[in-house]
Amino acid sequence: MSGGRTYLVGLVGSGIGPSLSPALHEREAERLGLRYVYRLIDLDGTGASPGPPGPGEASAERTGELVRAARELGFDGLNITHPCKQAVIPHLDVLAPQAEALGAVNTVVFDGHRAVGHNTDVTGFASSFARGLPDAAIDDVVLLGSGGAGAAVAHAMLGLGTGRLTVVDAEPDRASALAGSLVRHFGDGRAVVAELPELRARLARADGLVHATPTGMAAHPGLPVPAEALHPGLWVAEVVYRPLRTELLGAARARGCRVLDGGGMAVFQAADALRLFTGLEPDSARMLADFEDLAEAPGAHL
Amino acid sequence: MSGGRTYLVGLVGSGIGPSLSPALHEREAERLGLRYVYRLIDLDGTGASPGPPGPGEASAERTGELVRAARELGFDGLNITHPCKQAVIPHLDVLAPQAEALGAVNTVVFDGHRAVGHNTDVTGFASSFARGLPDAAIDDVVLLGSGGAGAAVAHAMLGLGTGRLTVVDAEPDRASALAGSLVRHFGDGRAVVAELPELRARLARADGLVHATPTGMAAHPGLPVPAEALHPGLWVAEVVYRPLRTELLGAARARGCRVLDGGGMAVFQAADALRLFTGLEPDSARMLADFEDLAEAPGAHL
Repeated sequence: MSGGRTYLVGLVGSGIGPSLSPALHEREAERLGLRYVYRLIDLDGTGASPGPPGPGEASAERTGELVRAARELGFDGLNITHPCKQAVIPHLDVLAPQAEALGAVNTVVFDGHRAVGHNTDVTGFASSFARGLPDAAIDDVVLLGSGGAGAAVAHAMLGLGTGRLTVVDAEPDRASALAGSLVRHFGDGRAVVAELPELRARLARADGLVHATPTGMAAHPGLPVPAEALHPGLWVAEVVYRPLRTELLGAARARGCRVLDGGGMAVFQAADALRLFTGLEPDSARMLADFEDLAEAPGAHL
Repeated sequence: MSGGRTYLVGLVGSGIGPSLSPALHEREAERLGLRYVYRLIDLDGTGASPGPPGPGEASAERTGELVRAARELGFDGLNITHPCKQAVIPHLDVLAPQAEALGAVNTVVFDGHRAVGHNTDVTGFASSFARGLPDAAIDDVVLLGSGGAGAAVAHAMLGLGTGRLTVVDAEPDRASALAGSLVRHFGDGRAVVAELPELRARLARADGLVHATPTGMAAHPGLPVPAEALHPGLWVAEVVYRPLRTELLGAARARGCRVLDGGGMAVFQAADALRLFTGLEPDSARMLADFEDLAEAPGAHL
């Protein structure tokens, strides 16, 4: 690779110190023969502004500053994570269709004089699903959780062809807002809302459940749905990937469900970002192996 | 080098588009087994401020912004060139002795939470001289040109042991200011000033001449001293390296002088910066070979 061009990218977000993204990108880039540097740009660890930046306004302003600075300093692109995925949008020149539809950006490519926003959470979940549950029925799907991750997987499932997505959230207003946005983008009837007490009945007749709340993460242990609601006719896809084997996946397997863990989404969103940054085709199987290896290390996060 | 740490550095300055520094650093870093990215951060090509930044105040302010941004975005260090070598100083936490003495910084290392300023123009010229003219007498040396490059080589020569350095410049005030500063740092009598009409007489009894004006560069062709002033007892060291074979060096060789071209300083300043950035020992012979290779390419500059 002597004399070849180099790639410089980074991750902008809050509390990203233990992220696995640098290792995941850099390992695959090296196998592709690239000189590739991935830097963590932690909102909590930067800033000339006096005092700790709060959420909201301060983060939004910092996001814009960091995107501008990264462009000036020769970055080829950025990954963007919480709490910047919406805040970054006013600082970009153009959005790819999925990012535009979702209203969230997790990948920015500095393409000549333009900053282009993409969302590889959407494409990453879609790729992970297509790989992990390739022949699953997807006509009737329940989505539990309508935050940022839930919105991304909702767009992915409807893009894959789900006929009706039922959005359930402990905050009904948030579920309604997401369902309304989905209907505007994908058409009448493609998304509906249900309240938590209806969850079991909805799952009884559904093809699958996508879980997109934090429940099951180390800091939020527990089962997001009653185990009795799971049945062998239901597949269960998890967005949580830390741990990879969540309580939900364990209970689903025990009840005879086919399952998809959250590692695939994490890996494919990274693979899709690497492809956008470099134009080269990453080997997602190698990246999945890296992920399992890295995720086992103590203290790891993506 | 799999899984090893990565290095991210850059060059801040004006009009640096054709610089050879990225290639010079990255080629050697790759041979050292490092993942190393070197980015050009051109003052002329960046900036949110409306309108072209002028010299002086605007550049000084931009330098501070860029140093702060580079630190936030995970750079390990920066090279600094015209017009920022003085302007960068207020934005650093500590200066290495040579940078402090010279009042100019060409290398910044982000060392944990500190930004440390160094000057590898001084050490680079000293190394080049020690390598190229190892047994030359250096007691009585004439320096032609008292700008930034002249000041750096003055510190290098006095550091190598020159007993008396005669500073000559078309602007006598600038020569006096440099000589005054040198005397304060190195002691009475170590630096004196001469006017241009005295140059030939000074050279007649000198051991060597260091040339540090732009004359001889592609944009400033010509001989900075009359050929008749050169004699076989005099060595001639050149700071200009583009072209490597200047008219002065040609005339000096024709008159029997030993000569040192400007390539060595350019290479050793880069090697010293690479060592400061990484803690590893570059192979300067390999870098010199790269430099000759790169400098022959059309349109190349360092």
